Amino acid sequence: MSANAAAVNAADQEFLQRQMLAVGQRAREAARAISAADPGVKNAALFALADLLVSRESILLAENARDMQAGREKGLDAALLDRLELTPERIRAMADGVRQVAALDDPVGAISNWSYRPSGIQVGKMRVPLGVVGIIYESRPNVTADAAVLCLKSGNAAILRGGSEAIRSNLAIGACVTQALRDVELPADCVQVLDMTDRAAVPIMVGMSEYIDVIVPRGGKGLVSAVAEHARVPVIKHLDGICHVYIDDAADRSKALAIAVNAKTQRYGTCNTMETLLIAHSRAADLLPDLAAAYREAGVELRGCPRAQALVDDMASASDDDWATEYLAPILSIRVVDDLEQAMAHIRQYSSQHTDAIVTEDLVKARRFLREVDSSSVMVNASTRFADGFEYGLGAEIGISTDKLHARGPVGLHGLTTEKYVVMGDGHIR
Amino acid sequence: MSANAAAVNAADQEFLQRQMLAVGQRAREAARAISAADPGVKNAALFALADLLVSRESILLAENARDMQAGREKGLDAALLDRLELTPERIRAMADGVRQVAALDDPVGAISNWSYRPSGIQVGKMRVPLGVVGIIYESRPNVTADAAVLCLKSGNAAILRGGSEAIRSNLAIGACVTQALRDVELPADCVQVLDMTDRAAVPIMVGMSEYIDVIVPRGGKGLVSAVAEHARVPVIKHLDGICHVYIDDAADRSKALAIAVNAKTQRYGTCNTMETLLIAHSRAADLLPDLAAAYREAGVELRGCPRAQALVDDMASASDDDWATEYLAPILSIRVVDDLEQAMAHIRQYSSQHTDAIVTEDLVKARRFLREVDSSSVMVNASTRFADGFEYGLGAEIGISTDKLHARGPVGLHGLTTEKYVVMGDGHIR
Repeated sequence: MSANAAAVNAADQEFLQRQMLAVGQRAREAARAISAADPGVKNAALFALADLLVSRESILLAENARDMQAGREKGLDAALLDRLELTPERIRAMADGVRQVAALDDPVGAISNWSYRPSGIQVGKMRVPLGVVGIIYESRPNVTADAAVLCLKSGNAAILRGGSEAIRSNLAIGACVTQALRDVELPADCVQVLDMTDRAAVPIMVGMSEYIDVIVPRGGKGLVSAVAEHARVPVIKHLDGICHVYIDDAADRSKALAIAVNAKTQRYGTCNTMETLLIAHSRAADLLPDLAAAYREAGVELRGCPRAQALVDDMASASDDDWATEYLAPILSIRVVDDLEQAMAHIRQYSSQHTDAIVTEDLVKARRFLREVDSSSVMVNASTRFADGFEYGLGAEIGISTDKLHARGPVGLHGLTTEKYVVMGDGHIR
Repeated sequence: MSANAAAVNAADQEFLQRQMLAVGQRAREAARAISAADPGVKNAALFALADLLVSRESILLAENARDMQAGREKGLDAALLDRLELTPERIRAMADGVRQVAALDDPVGAISNWSYRPSGIQVGKMRVPLGVVGIIYESRPNVTADAAVLCLKSGNAAILRGGSEAIRSNLAIGACVTQALRDVELPADCVQVLDMTDRAAVPIMVGMSEYIDVIVPRGGKGLVSAVAEHARVPVIKHLDGICHVYIDDAADRSKALAIAVNAKTQRYGTCNTMETLLIAHSRAADLLPDLAAAYREAGVELRGCPRAQALVDDMASASDDDWATEYLAPILSIRVVDDLEQAMAHIRQYSSQHTDAIVTEDLVKARRFLREVDSSSVMVNASTRFADGFEYGLGAEIGISTDKLHARGPVGLHGLTTEKYVVMGDGHIR
């Protein structure tokens, strides 16, 4: 690079830095207003947004068409273009999602564990917003609306940084959010959709710990690990979903077949899809041939340990890498284990601590599995595919966390809040 | 440094790294045993420890005397030597503290929000240990026992790294913990007291995210910020306690005097001590002279804003630095403010978000202060000195957090645990 180009780049970088700082300051200021807003006002903004998304359908479709056109010219693949596309149905679904969030209980201000202490003071914990939430996402424009309303409902200001491919769609949805906020006289800066699609904006954003309280990356592993690597701001994230189903000696045959097939084949690209099937040695000869037939009918490629290979014709051999891989594809690794002990040891070694399940009718083993498997969701006799904010009754989901602190598993409105102690006295001193 | 010395240093560093790695691996392995231990077994270990601390009093005193002697030779100041010293009373208090923790409810395994979902699955959240907790502390040897029992009770393995001045005392207490664990057949590695007092061990320890789930630094600001700076492991910390009391227009006179004096003078070196008094303009002329007299009688130096200076003779002028300083000493800054608005703006700018209090009889203002002040403890008509795990009924305290995520305010047993989702089905699939 010439000295001149380097100087221009440095100037660009400084300009970007200043811009991002201004975004952060505006968000911090707006956070005060949204954190103190009454539930009715926040809900009115959400309903206004839902109506605007529908009434501006033609604008959203037109802006999205420009993104789609640019994407086609850039040679984006079919899957990416599908994620990027808005249709009238998708816009209606987005508006419905907004109304569903409005209908949820407002988490802010609830006081729990309110008690008198021996000293005479009263102590409780009040649920309060985190402050400013930064969302970094990829090509789905509906995330703009989803993330905005979850942040608003939980009393947080939001900074939304979507992918460059969806920029026109995102800004058009952002304009609806701005209008909805204005309609109820909340500051427009409560939700800022960044028009800075420069890659350099991300490391700046995740370093702004003075202005952003938590970052939620939503996207593929590349995005999430890039965010986590540079972050000075706490991150709510999961990197991998290497989920296991263990079919125990004491499993019910039909439950085992149903769960093992569903956990793999209901959807392939989701993080709660089973990637490795573990099966007790005593049940393998009976179950594996039927399971293999079902998987093959669904088009799933099987890779097994030697004991599994011995029971199923033409099964490829699973390498050590297979046990550690999130396929996100119609591929399944299968291992025959001696017993629960060996199954849990395998899970300890390879699980990404997302979701693991046991199929068993034995209460003692079920209790042990629930207690000892250290994953964000641990299941008995249910498909791993249930690990989801909607299925768990959170009403909505901003992401899934495989970290242990703060939020673990599907993260809903509560994960975007924290608690502070509140103390009431009558002149009490120590 | 000569090339030879550098090579020796690099070899030392590598040796230390290997040692710390082995410590981490042993802790991770031991964590499995302690996380699954029954409450009765953990309590038996705690009672055994309490008895051992008392029965080995003479050993503890002898080892502590060696630390004290070395400290005197190194020229440690009186305050540090006092913190370092063990006496028969302090040993008894330590043993009593251990028994108190044993008497607390066991947090592990409790399932909350257990509910049926429309799909038919049951979903709940089970409280589980974090895994491995690292504690980094300074010269008080009693922290060794306190931290060990809080970690054990909450089902975590602990790695304890105390200051070099207290190393003999810490190892002697650690030997009691080891014996107590052996007595109940728990792995001795559930609590490892490091004999590596090399400063270089700290950055290695706080980078071991594979083996340590959370770090709790306990000590001065220098220690805490050094830990936070290098940490790859999540840290539960507070850096500053710049706490405020605001005396509102509608304050009761006697409550205001009692709280403002107590919050400053009950103890000077604690993080929940008031450092800045804010007082409404309408009450300043009446209250400040009496308050100033009380502070001066207690030996507190006063530094005020111009309006405060106008009401009290010989008051020094407070600089901008004063508002941002945690004195930890008999010094108080005083500012006269127009009203609640200006008081909250001052708190927003200067508070370390530890503990802030309002004195008022006005319900509307009390509600606003509780809702809008963004600190880990927010109080009405009570002394900031109440911000403490024991006063709040947590039974014990591993530290105080001014961070927002995971744990906020005084951190007890719950702060050393997390929750995972547990799901029970009967063959349910999606």
